[in-house]
Amino acid sequence: MAKDKKQPRPKAETPKGFTDYFGQQVAERTEMLSRIAAVYHRYGFDALETSAVETVEALGKFLPDVDRPNEGVFAWQEDAEGEKPGDWLALRYDMTAPLARVYAQHRNDLPTPYRRYTFGPVWRNEKPGPGRFRQFYQCDADTVGTASMAADAEICAMLADALEEVGIARGDYVIRINNRKVLNAVLEAIGVDNIFEDERREHVRGITLRSIDKLDRLGWEGVEQLLTTGRKDESGDFTAGAGFRQHAVDTIKAVFVDARDSSNLEAARDYARSVGDRSWWTDDDRLVLYNIYTVLGNTSAGIDAMQELIQIVDLCRKQGYGPDRIVIDPSVVRGLGYYTGPVYEAELTFEIKDEKGRPRQFGSVAGGGRYDDLVKRFTGQSVPATGISIGVDRLLAALRMRRQGQAQADGPVVVTVMDRDRMADYMAMVAELRGAGIRAEVYLGNPKNFGNQLKYADKRGSPVAVIEGADEKSKGVVQIKDLVLGLQIAENATLEEWKDRPSQYEVPRSELVARVRGILDGLA
Amino acid sequence: MAKDKKQPRPKAETPKGFTDYFGQQVAERTEMLSRIAAVYHRYGFDALETSAVETVEALGKFLPDVDRPNEGVFAWQEDAEGEKPGDWLALRYDMTAPLARVYAQHRNDLPTPYRRYTFGPVWRNEKPGPGRFRQFYQCDADTVGTASMAADAEICAMLADALEEVGIARGDYVIRINNRKVLNAVLEAIGVDNIFEDERREHVRGITLRSIDKLDRLGWEGVEQLLTTGRKDESGDFTAGAGFRQHAVDTIKAVFVDARDSSNLEAARDYARSVGDRSWWTDDDRLVLYNIYTVLGNTSAGIDAMQELIQIVDLCRKQGYGPDRIVIDPSVVRGLGYYTGPVYEAELTFEIKDEKGRPRQFGSVAGGGRYDDLVKRFTGQSVPATGISIGVDRLLAALRMRRQGQAQADGPVVVTVMDRDRMADYMAMVAELRGAGIRAEVYLGNPKNFGNQLKYADKRGSPVAVIEGADEKSKGVVQIKDLVLGLQIAENATLEEWKDRPSQYEVPRSELVARVRGILDGLA
Repeated sequence: MAKDKKQPRPKAETPKGFTDYFGQQVAERTEMLSRIAAVYHRYGFDALETSAVETVEALGKFLPDVDRPNEGVFAWQEDAEGEKPGDWLALRYDMTAPLARVYAQHRNDLPTPYRRYTFGPVWRNEKPGPGRFRQFYQCDADTVGTASMAADAEICAMLADALEEVGIARGDYVIRINNRKVLNAVLEAIGVDNIFEDERREHVRGITLRSIDKLDRLGWEGVEQLLTTGRKDESGDFTAGAGFRQHAVDTIKAVFVDARDSSNLEAARDYARSVGDRSWWTDDDRLVLYNIYTVLGNTSAGIDAMQELIQIVDLCRKQGYGPDRIVIDPSVVRGLGYYTGPVYEAELTFEIKDEKGRPRQFGSVAGGGRYDDLVKRFTGQSVPATGISIGVDRLLAALRMRRQGQAQADGPVVVTVMDRDRMADYMAMVAELRGAGIRAEVYLGNPKNFGNQLKYADKRGSPVAVIEGADEKSKGVVQIKDLVLGLQIAENATLEEWKDRPSQYEVPRSELVARVRGILDGLA
Repeated sequence: MAKDKKQPRPKAETPKGFTDYFGQQVAERTEMLSRIAAVYHRYGFDALETSAVETVEALGKFLPDVDRPNEGVFAWQEDAEGEKPGDWLALRYDMTAPLARVYAQHRNDLPTPYRRYTFGPVWRNEKPGPGRFRQFYQCDADTVGTASMAADAEICAMLADALEEVGIARGDYVIRINNRKVLNAVLEAIGVDNIFEDERREHVRGITLRSIDKLDRLGWEGVEQLLTTGRKDESGDFTAGAGFRQHAVDTIKAVFVDARDSSNLEAARDYARSVGDRSWWTDDDRLVLYNIYTVLGNTSAGIDAMQELIQIVDLCRKQGYGPDRIVIDPSVVRGLGYYTGPVYEAELTFEIKDEKGRPRQFGSVAGGGRYDDLVKRFTGQSVPATGISIGVDRLLAALRMRRQGQAQADGPVVVTVMDRDRMADYMAMVAELRGAGIRAEVYLGNPKNFGNQLKYADKRGSPVAVIEGADEKSKGVVQIKDLVLGLQIAENATLEEWKDRPSQYEVPRSELVARVRGILDGLA
């Protein structure tokens, strides 16, 4: 029997592609998310926490002919109940599918529109890579049940507030807005919509979408190859081209690459001046729209897209969000395929160095847009919705970079144990310190080797160690060791220079809390 | 092909035994956990967030002869890599197994002792019941790597601070301490340890443990039946008894039921007075230990247990935690089987009504103790550890009961839309309100029917609605509708009584923020 087998020791390892988060990592994320939540709450958004587990059916991954429907998700089958086979369950892979399920399930009880925010882990059953985990955080906010552009404008303003609230300075970020309908208008303008044969039309539409979607990664040159004669990638693989003529390629470039280009902005400004329209020539966003209009003004989708964009940007301006924070930018193509209306992306504009030491902008930390088929799968009804998702790990990484060099001494004050029989006295000291709101602990390891206690304090990042041996006790004093100052002395100074500022000194026991507080205040 | 089949609409349902948490529910839990985390942090505990997924091997549920090792856990098998079968993975079912894995994996990098706290969901693949979900929160704090009773005393003090920090008043809770070694001493005293035949001894030990463990549920009468002649339960099922003689039964009762009984405390006090030992007769905890000593003083386990208990309680007292908060109580038997030393339990002592309207104490909200085989499964080394787990949902329920009757108006101020073309003006109003830290939103549904806007405000629990039509706009005013006051008027008063306090009035547009702030301050 298995019971009697001696089992080998299990390996102490996280599963492949998973990781643990320690101390400061957890604290930083918690702090950031709670600041974001406070902003979202102020905007009237309500928290929602769905269960991590959904039925595979609700997630929309139900493939009845496949044994294990876990393409991309972690899934398992419930035990059968009698004759009835068990449901397939899975861990959520994003926050949108659960929102759709919740809205369909509770739509009679929820307010309309329903503004909700949520954050928590999601899981992807994918091949993990460096820095790419199979469990990661998402932080989403969505407004469900309104087609009003005011909802989109609100989300953009809220995103700006959230970024500033967590510590991204104004000027260090910009929120760019585009519209999926611009893409539709381009397809209309270059004649793809007029291809008579269904299959051929969908083929060309697909290849065009996929090509434009690669603008970020390949740059215009690569996209142009894909749109015309085809492209050989670095590995030597060849992707066939869409075979567009020059006119169509120019149209695509004019919209997605050139419309916000500075020389084209100036050209548009000159024209606006020449016709005397002040409200346009002073407003870059309107000039961008003018440039798009010259290309797409004869398409119905193009007119729609421009009207929606101008509504959003005007609503943002009226609330005080200027072009330093929110702009129209047709080059935002990420995810255009998924959305049905406005799309937005928040980019951090400060420079960082890439792996090779070259300067580049930090890049995107959040994205979103309008999608109108949220609950249709469940109820058959189309429900308009718009929302944003913040890349929690990317934003955290950005905040860490901005904070570099600033000391973070969050370790506890360590009260050392000179005499293990006087543990009660040492614990009374930490109780006093904690009572004053100071993070503190008594050393609870084996106190025999005093050096180990100081090594422990070092490992904990302690700012201060407190020492009370028999001598100190009899004199009514304690020794306070300023570990941060001690480190500075060790690193930077000759003893001569520092002789007036010893890093360890005696203070009356009654002044313990006040003196420790003084050191900590000096560090803050 | 499956692709072409028209799929039926999926059901919009949480999987069986799972649930969603909305708005205030999420906010209350987040607030409570962040207060607890702040206390734990002040005590020097570091946050740890492990992945939700562990290998089944690390969780200790690896049964190689079983196809799906998911007894009690949600488990699935990874895809095979070539010849190698995929690992079995599972969702964590508690926070202790992952702590053991983390400590074994990172023991060279972690400080010793390692104090960590964690909170998050855990998952149990069990039959759900009313109010019993298959995903729920745990909030744990543990100190790993020290055998010192100071660690146990610290955990008890920290638990008291945490309860007070979340809003349980002093006097409304008590932390009871016992020791697993008391049970060992009882087994020694009643001769179970002396049973020569291994199998028989283990059988009697098991039946004794299980019987005492049922004290909470069955009361002494039921336990006595189990210890002697056996017990028939309500369903008619009969459990065979352990066959103990009266002397053994009396010993068990003396320790687990009677030692803290008030008449026995008085008897002990009289004796202590008679021998003139003032430090004992003024201290109930020492009297309890005296009562245990009279029964178990001739066992080595009993002496150990009492020394540990007196150490813990003395360390607590020295930090200022008196018998109003932390007491020794041998009747705490919950989980004794699992622990190896001190055990503790926090009970809320205020009265609530049970389902039948009878008064009873709220009961246990947290429990824990010392367990010394934490990482042995992984490394072969015994590592002492002690910790506490707070029942997040039970503590939340308690806080809600204590808060009953106190109004909680957390809904947003709703700015209504009288003229949809002036959305920008309404959004500017909410921007001003939000800028002043006031939760506010503009109505984003279809504004045609004004009644629907007020119904929406009602559903959102809004304290105030703001109205600005063409008339108000031209006069430079807005209408403010105090919805809480309006509700009170509708519920409680004749119009006569309230004519001096109208619930809707005009204020200058420039005073919008100040007047809304005034109403909200009046509610707080």
